[in-house]
Amino acid sequence: MTTRRMNEAKDRYYMSLAIDLARKGTGRTAPNPRVGCVIVKEGRIAGWGFHKACGLPHAEAEALQRAGGDAKGSTLYVNLEPCSHHGKTPPCSSAIIEAGVSRVVAAMKDPDPRVSGRGFSMLHEAGIEVEVGPCVAEAVRINRGFIKRVIKGHPWVTLKAAMTLDGRIADESGWSKWISNEWSRKRSHILRTEHDAVLVGIGTVVSDDPKLTVREVSGYSPRVVLLDPSLKVSPGANIFRYGKPLVIASTRADSRKVRVLENAGAGVILLPSEKGSPALSDVLGCLADEGINELLVEGGSKVLGSFLSERLFDDVSLFVSPRFMGEGKPLCGEVRWLALENAPSVFITKKTLVEGDLWIEGTVKCSLD
Amino acid sequence: MTTRRMNEAKDRYYMSLAIDLARKGTGRTAPNPRVGCVIVKEGRIAGWGFHKACGLPHAEAEALQRAGGDAKGSTLYVNLEPCSHHGKTPPCSSAIIEAGVSRVVAAMKDPDPRVSGRGFSMLHEAGIEVEVGPCVAEAVRINRGFIKRVIKGHPWVTLKAAMTLDGRIADESGWSKWISNEWSRKRSHILRTEHDAVLVGIGTVVSDDPKLTVREVSGYSPRVVLLDPSLKVSPGANIFRYGKPLVIASTRADSRKVRVLENAGAGVILLPSEKGSPALSDVLGCLADEGINELLVEGGSKVLGSFLSERLFDDVSLFVSPRFMGEGKPLCGEVRWLALENAPSVFITKKTLVEGDLWIEGTVKCSLD
Repeated sequence: MTTRRMNEAKDRYYMSLAIDLARKGTGRTAPNPRVGCVIVKEGRIAGWGFHKACGLPHAEAEALQRAGGDAKGSTLYVNLEPCSHHGKTPPCSSAIIEAGVSRVVAAMKDPDPRVSGRGFSMLHEAGIEVEVGPCVAEAVRINRGFIKRVIKGHPWVTLKAAMTLDGRIADESGWSKWISNEWSRKRSHILRTEHDAVLVGIGTVVSDDPKLTVREVSGYSPRVVLLDPSLKVSPGANIFRYGKPLVIASTRADSRKVRVLENAGAGVILLPSEKGSPALSDVLGCLADEGINELLVEGGSKVLGSFLSERLFDDVSLFVSPRFMGEGKPLCGEVRWLALENAPSVFITKKTLVEGDLWIEGTVKCSLD
Repeated sequence: MTTRRMNEAKDRYYMSLAIDLARKGTGRTAPNPRVGCVIVKEGRIAGWGFHKACGLPHAEAEALQRAGGDAKGSTLYVNLEPCSHHGKTPPCSSAIIEAGVSRVVAAMKDPDPRVSGRGFSMLHEAGIEVEVGPCVAEAVRINRGFIKRVIKGHPWVTLKAAMTLDGRIADESGWSKWISNEWSRKRSHILRTEHDAVLVGIGTVVSDDPKLTVREVSGYSPRVVLLDPSLKVSPGANIFRYGKPLVIASTRADSRKVRVLENAGAGVILLPSEKGSPALSDVLGCLADEGINELLVEGGSKVLGSFLSERLFDDVSLFVSPRFMGEGKPLCGEVRWLALENAPSVFITKKTLVEGDLWIEGTVKCSLD
């Protein structure tokens, strides 16, 4: 191997460690991105850190503190451009400069058009060598929610459902417990911990009264978002017992009901609604403003149908029980497309057997383009 | 390795060759089984053969002819017990004895309770060493249709459908061309060549006028079976142009229409029908009597629903386009089960990405038990 290729391999190796660290913040950093940092001095790791949760120190600050005096003359690896502005913590670029770091390797620029490149400029102007690019694909993947929110003003949206082989998510009476097996349910709880919020429609709350918490596996519960245009939800529902849900309703909703739900702990957001329900695009805009990077949509049939129909989703995660239900609630109800060519589609990225159930993951092509 | 284990490995090796040969008869041997034969003399292959089609020589006869005088003192490998009775050809056991073979290794007994074991007895009584068992699982698999027909009086039934991720096989108007992609369609044509007959309902013929031939890949076209209780089919339909279909109707069907269809080349079978349509179990009995070992059911929705509902199927082959259709024809229509636990289910054996489509194969547990 040439020296150049050896150095490139070394950069990718340390960057992959930084990304592994970044992942540890999953589900806790929003509205911030997932960031990990590794400081290397003379061939050994002198410091490391990751952004644990919004409000806590940035990855670079943690790593610099661990490195102490060893930061001088070191190379710092970080999966996202160091910040250049005062937020809840001082700018990392200044801290890196002050610590005497010689070289900064970042996987990608900060996608926020208001700040993008300024961190690199500060470092460069201070005489630090800056390299951008190693492991960029994985760096984009772990922050796809953050990137989509700052660029497009919407969270990354994953549609999740448990269904039978013939595409039914519940029987005719609405009964859906339990379509998927124990292992699929565990895996879907892991999926919840990986998202900042989980969204359902009022139909699901009325028929199932779900808790929407993370159980069966360890991990934080995501915020619950309820689409409930005319505020039919009861303040005694489980989502109020186990958290402080965000309820999205129409501006026409009863203001006394708004106060009742707020007293029950909910945040209530009222949006104009021309067709009975607020436009989903406005809903997603609101959730982005609330700092939600990654949103898991758990249905039911009508809500999933709306997201599919308006193509406001980025990927799907389907837990398929190898059974046939016949008549029952379809995965996506009340939607039709003029021609099959117009049907929303995904690119299947993974197919996993989960103790007999089939877990299909798919993504919309070019979601971040 | 001990000598015993080495001999066992050698037996499995030659048996796997015999099974590979047997597979070459796929789609052509019914009502006979698929059989391949290898004759080994002093460590080299002295003869080989397979049953090419019903009416043509048995595998053992072909192999013995190729071996000639070398059969004397040889070991003969065959995946099914050699026959002991005069059918369209003389009994293979006699031919094996006459040729002076010293040892016969068979993967399994003939499952037909009327003959099972008699071939082995003949060989044994003639002083030939008989060994049964190597590669029995694969031997059963390649003749699952033959085995099920002779034991249970029904063919092996595979339900096949092309559907969207949400379980729709056609849009609301019945339009189903083309849900699956080009490669899935090619794979499903291979599936047709692997079956003795393909069955559809009159609804599919009226709405799609399918040819049901094997195109796009090389291979023989299976026989077409049409379920058409009241004989609504037009003698100008494509299934009459490209073959001689078997039409199954109710005994109440118009006898003039029967003659019209017979003149168009069809075989017409009339069955009693209490509920408008003949019982599927009777239909399958008839098809077994017609010598069909393996039946591919291609739908539509109502036919698939009936086979699922009555649990008269052995496996499923689903070509899933990664699209969502919303409202449309369900995979299995007009059926419901009292509880989800009662829903017919399969064990998923394979999941294959076919250029973006997902091909799911599943089998009913214990179909041959």
